[in-house]
Amino acid sequence: MEILKVSSKSNPNSVAGAIAGVMREEGSVELQAVGAGAVNQAVKATAIARGFLSPSGCELISTPSFTSVNISGEDRTGISFFLTARRQGEAF
Amino acid sequence: MEILKVSSKSNPNSVAGAIAGVMREEGSVELQAVGAGAVNQAVKATAIARGFLSPSGCELISTPSFTSVNISGEDRTGISFFLTARRQGEAF
Repeated sequence: MEILKVSSKSNPNSVAGAIAGVMREEGSVELQAVGAGAVNQAVKATAIARGFLSPSGCELISTPSFTSVNISGEDRTGISFFLTARRQGEAF
Repeated sequence: MEILKVSSKSNPNSVAGAIAGVMREEGSVELQAVGAGAVNQAVKATAIARGFLSPSGCELISTPSFTSVNISGEDRTGISFFLTARRQGEAF
């Protein structure tokens, strides 16, 4: 599965476009973010991407979990968002 | 639906406990967070709550969207996380 690394300097609109592109091709995508600023940009990008995908009847859903990310040879705890979609109106 | 307001000073473990409690009683809950620090705590709380609910066969999923939150008479843009659960292994 494709992994998009999000930083505190990532543009949420650009990340949202990338999310929508990968979702349309593969049906799921993982976002990785380390630090509050990066997590915030990842969440904003997800909220924007929901609007991009909604007209095609896909509702984007997110499952966050903790993950270990290697940055410059150092292991840091970050958040992994596993994004997938369900058809709108579909029951759980 | 119950709304849990999360701040940058919220303890993620305490919020996770509150999420798990409301989820067990009502099946869904909304988190509201304004600012990167608050959004980060809300996401960490969600990741922790997933671990609390997982043994009972419930997988917590999140749909983030933008929302307007009134703080001290001023409207600010924040993030609303709508949390619900699906049975583990259930197809979309």
